[in-house]
Amino acid sequence: MTNDADMLEALVNTGILLSSEHSIDVLLEQTLKTARSLFGAEGASLYLADSGMLHFRIFSNPVLEDKLGPEGVRKAYKARPVKIGPGSISGYTAYAGESTIVTDAYNIPGDAPYSFNTSFDKSSGYKTVNLATVPMKTRKGKVVGVLQLVNLQGLDSFSDTAMRAMEAFGAQVAVAVENATLTEELKKAQYETITRLAAAAELKDPDTGDHLRRMSEYSRDIADACGLDEHTVELIYYASPLHDVGKIAIPDDILLKPGPLDDDEWEVMRTHTVIGADILRNPHSELAAYARDIALCHHERIDGKGYPSEIKGDDIPFAARVVSVADVFDALTSRRPYKEPFPAAKAIEIINEGAAKGQFDPEIVKAFLGIAGS
Amino acid sequence: MTNDADMLEALVNTGILLSSEHSIDVLLEQTLKTARSLFGAEGASLYLADSGMLHFRIFSNPVLEDKLGPEGVRKAYKARPVKIGPGSISGYTAYAGESTIVTDAYNIPGDAPYSFNTSFDKSSGYKTVNLATVPMKTRKGKVVGVLQLVNLQGLDSFSDTAMRAMEAFGAQVAVAVENATLTEELKKAQYETITRLAAAAELKDPDTGDHLRRMSEYSRDIADACGLDEHTVELIYYASPLHDVGKIAIPDDILLKPGPLDDDEWEVMRTHTVIGADILRNPHSELAAYARDIALCHHERIDGKGYPSEIKGDDIPFAARVVSVADVFDALTSRRPYKEPFPAAKAIEIINEGAAKGQFDPEIVKAFLGIAGS
Repeated sequence: MTNDADMLEALVNTGILLSSEHSIDVLLEQTLKTARSLFGAEGASLYLADSGMLHFRIFSNPVLEDKLGPEGVRKAYKARPVKIGPGSISGYTAYAGESTIVTDAYNIPGDAPYSFNTSFDKSSGYKTVNLATVPMKTRKGKVVGVLQLVNLQGLDSFSDTAMRAMEAFGAQVAVAVENATLTEELKKAQYETITRLAAAAELKDPDTGDHLRRMSEYSRDIADACGLDEHTVELIYYASPLHDVGKIAIPDDILLKPGPLDDDEWEVMRTHTVIGADILRNPHSELAAYARDIALCHHERIDGKGYPSEIKGDDIPFAARVVSVADVFDALTSRRPYKEPFPAAKAIEIINEGAAKGQFDPEIVKAFLGIAGS
Repeated sequence: MTNDADMLEALVNTGILLSSEHSIDVLLEQTLKTARSLFGAEGASLYLADSGMLHFRIFSNPVLEDKLGPEGVRKAYKARPVKIGPGSISGYTAYAGESTIVTDAYNIPGDAPYSFNTSFDKSSGYKTVNLATVPMKTRKGKVVGVLQLVNLQGLDSFSDTAMRAMEAFGAQVAVAVENATLTEELKKAQYETITRLAAAAELKDPDTGDHLRRMSEYSRDIADACGLDEHTVELIYYASPLHDVGKIAIPDDILLKPGPLDDDEWEVMRTHTVIGADILRNPHSELAAYARDIALCHHERIDGKGYPSEIKGDDIPFAARVVSVADVFDALTSRRPYKEPFPAAKAIEIINEGAAKGQFDPEIVKAFLGIAGS
């Protein structure tokens, strides 16, 4: 067992690591190594809770690694998910939400709410002497996993501070794990808004689904060819299927009219841009903001002769300028009740003319030609 | 300055606090007090970053509090939001993402990227001697705020460990703050999915908006009267406006038909339940799962004679049973093209008969009568 100064150093390091280490995997790995050296343990392993079970996530144990190799250890651990509840040591620790100290693994009193499973030792040839298992508890008291240290020096005479330092460790890791999970869930929730709306928008017209998939792929490829960063390309890819979401509110007799629309009908049809922006008003996420911009501005023209706002040039959001090219290209190359599909070469020619006439952004069309020609 | 053992104790406590303290406010308050005593500082204050500015959040400074009173301190701090960037000490700390040690506030070298603003001391009569300002940095390197300690004992001879312990503090608080923010954003994002879809569903029919508002209020009140917990009542309140979202896909000539529907038209109309469930398939959040259950099952009957699945009794999700009562009650008491609104007493009578005939859950209707009669 190390002294207070060392323990302080280690806790400080973990604290700083929490705020400096981008990758959750590296963070967990470093934490295990620090915990091992700090509490004088031969090995450490970490399990995350999911649907009532503990699943192995990561380990640090050179002795065991010498015996089985890193892959062997991982396989041995992975094969043993553990039920959260009385029974096993780690399962009980997660269940009770309290640290469990086992000073002699092979002599656990019969009335303990857990017993030591010897099968791991038997199959690996490892000799477990003692174990300290700490719950990883979040601020709301939720146990997100456990941290298990094995074969600690002087576990019999562990100080109260050492025990609590161990729990502080568990808490720090829990918060980091929870943050990683929340970040992931937040992204999913933001994408869910878009996916559900797109699903709703597709319902009226079975052809729409294919059009949306193709045009979001074209939009992604064009955005990429324009040299946008990966994150922005992804935003455009996911936001573009919502460009026509406002059509939900257009009456069927206009939306589904087999013949050409008259002037009044066109006027109604054009409102799908502002209605789409209205459905997406006050966006809370970057993704929803992109979707709103695209819905509102994908019929604007670079020369200011588009709709609904007749804005021009750089006043039109870049994403909307990308989507307008993708949208028209897919319309040209698709079969419609009133027209045959144009061959790609002809459609490219029309897009190119569109750029010359002030419909599209010439830079974006240049990027489009670079990939469409290939 | 305290010794290593004390510092360890404090960091351990903060670590454990991170995982035990439910309220972020109490957490921050405790952290400031601990930081103050640990680093021998007269005062501590915490600022959170938002849109390029630092905003005061919380303080702990008995000397200043004696002078101005707690409200006076809060007002004095709140009146001074600080720009993130070179200029002020806290603004520079957040900007640079590095700790700033000022050993003599009134003698800062002229070439420093910050200066000390004396106006606070002047107006409050407080005497700032020195300052240690630490960025609160998350795992992704984002500065979410700064922690500022004022009038520290022996700041001139602060050890390297003490400095790093201070940064570990900042990191721990940053992670906790980030966690609280993420939780809040996740909730918002999950509600956004619902709000957007409801906005889209309302567009076809201007009357729908009022109906949705009323029936979600009725649903909430009935759920509450049934004795459900606050969280579930809130889920039902927010999910219920999506009960008819599937109507987005019903053709206008059926959806908006002024007269009664024939059998074939009814068959189409009834599909709004399964279409709604389809729009909400594979829900990622509890809220979306409630919305899907309600959309699918709000026309089922307790006797199994409803649609689309003809399930009965407890097989119908409780939330859907609640919403079916609220939905029918609002329909009865509203004006429709083909009918005058029923008076509330008559509508209540019809609902009560509906329970007797096996349309509604008698327990839910009992709860409804309890509040509807009052």
